[in-house]
Amino acid sequence: MRLLVGTVQGTPSVYAVEGGQATNLTDLLPDVGTDLARLVASPELMAQAKSLVGNGGAIAVEDITPALPIEKPTAVLCMGLNYIEHIKEGGYDIPDYPAMFVRTNASIMAAGAPMVRPNCSETLDYEAELMLIIGKGGRHISEADALDHVFGYTVFNDGSVREYQRKTHQWTPGKNFDSTGAIGPYVVTPDELPAGATDLKIESRVGEEVLQSSNTSNMIWSAAQTIAIMSEFTTLQAGDHIALGTPPGVGHAKKPKPRWLVPGETVEIEIEGIGICASPVVAEGDV
Amino acid sequence: MRLLVGTVQGTPSVYAVEGGQATNLTDLLPDVGTDLARLVASPELMAQAKSLVGNGGAIAVEDITPALPIEKPTAVLCMGLNYIEHIKEGGYDIPDYPAMFVRTNASIMAAGAPMVRPNCSETLDYEAELMLIIGKGGRHISEADALDHVFGYTVFNDGSVREYQRKTHQWTPGKNFDSTGAIGPYVVTPDELPAGATDLKIESRVGEEVLQSSNTSNMIWSAAQTIAIMSEFTTLQAGDHIALGTPPGVGHAKKPKPRWLVPGETVEIEIEGIGICASPVVAEGDV
Repeated sequence: MRLLVGTVQGTPSVYAVEGGQATNLTDLLPDVGTDLARLVASPELMAQAKSLVGNGGAIAVEDITPALPIEKPTAVLCMGLNYIEHIKEGGYDIPDYPAMFVRTNASIMAAGAPMVRPNCSETLDYEAELMLIIGKGGRHISEADALDHVFGYTVFNDGSVREYQRKTHQWTPGKNFDSTGAIGPYVVTPDELPAGATDLKIESRVGEEVLQSSNTSNMIWSAAQTIAIMSEFTTLQAGDHIALGTPPGVGHAKKPKPRWLVPGETVEIEIEGIGICASPVVAEGDV
Repeated sequence: MRLLVGTVQGTPSVYAVEGGQATNLTDLLPDVGTDLARLVASPELMAQAKSLVGNGGAIAVEDITPALPIEKPTAVLCMGLNYIEHIKEGGYDIPDYPAMFVRTNASIMAAGAPMVRPNCSETLDYEAELMLIIGKGGRHISEADALDHVFGYTVFNDGSVREYQRKTHQWTPGKNFDSTGAIGPYVVTPDELPAGATDLKIESRVGEEVLQSSNTSNMIWSAAQTIAIMSEFTTLQAGDHIALGTPPGVGHAKKPKPRWLVPGETVEIEIEGIGICASPVVAEGDV
């Protein structure tokens, strides 16, 4: 299934999308709730929801304003430096263990919502990333079992304020500015994608300008390996979001000068088979 | 007020503590709920609760099993390297901007609950820290106004698995092992402490062995400065927890060899005027 959480005239619902048509699962089965929190936690509810697709009047996808797949994720765990060429452009050594960081809920927003360039810095940068959402939680999940724990895959723009990311050795502030991390709009279940969402083209663009263009097969740590590594230290929970790092081509590494996002632009992240996450860039005071 | 969230025979309540006696605020005013989430968000409810202290039968504090002050904090934002002598013992340079990281809810637990040494590493370390809980949220909070945004102060043991903290430049995994960050048990409102909770003795101990002994006045960034710095990038929310860094004396820096926590020990963090956060150390398999 291709799931979309969004609002129509202010009313939030969960939709199943086929072609350009969206079936309102929340209307057909109120237990679904208004975001994916209940579906990720219950395979039974998910199966029930799936069986209803096509049973009700569908609406056009364009009429839906995307919302976050889960309004308040239990955790947003992020992998840094997961594509070799991106590591080199950042001046880092190739690691044997991934660099990880956490984003708070204040820093994320839905696809289509403004990506806010703060007043304190012009160094707002894009990062195209594959993101997965955990279905079945657990600790010490083996790489072999890991993909059974994935509810679905979505698109992430790990918007980063580089000046604050590099103020110290800890990236936290630069990765946690309000409304800089765009998620969605579609969450695609694993049965619709290659195992582990490998071999998918991943791109970031502003208009015709292609900023990053790579393939999810170029990740150092696969989705399964990332789940195994993270669950060594933390009990993953249904609804946890895991971001899988970005390929080369980020703005701060562009030559001869950095290519920062500017208010008025719209940055798009596209992953083949999942969708496009578009974010209009807005200056902090203009939100 | 000195607030304590805890259970008696499995029933969670919020208590106001005076001397060794605890008044059950949840019983007297059910709107209070079973943790501090509602009180931090509503000064009116807090005033109402305060007026009721002494109106009902109090019980002995010893009969209460502490729970987390807020079961699922909106964010746990942590300051690293906030005491000069601790920075030197870790081999870091004195910074002009603080190193910050985020802990997930899976990594925290109540005072009194087991602190879990994972099977994968023996390098479990203690860190005595002052922690504040945000009352009034906001962005771009000035240092001058910052203390008006504090709901209360508590004790934090920022338990760290050093081997994983230093696997890469990002501290995230070592700071996010399940059940390593102890919070509580008391949350003390600002009116009962010096402004900004300065000039308070802070110690960590195992039995008679004093491991860290310092004073909150030795912090580089005060509570007010920390709120100003963090709210430059994130909108702080009522209920956010902010940890303010640890003084020198952590286990990994002890000479001639590191002093790791060992299952069977109980580590205590005490802050003058706030209380003692005691955690029995337990091996992962024995929880």
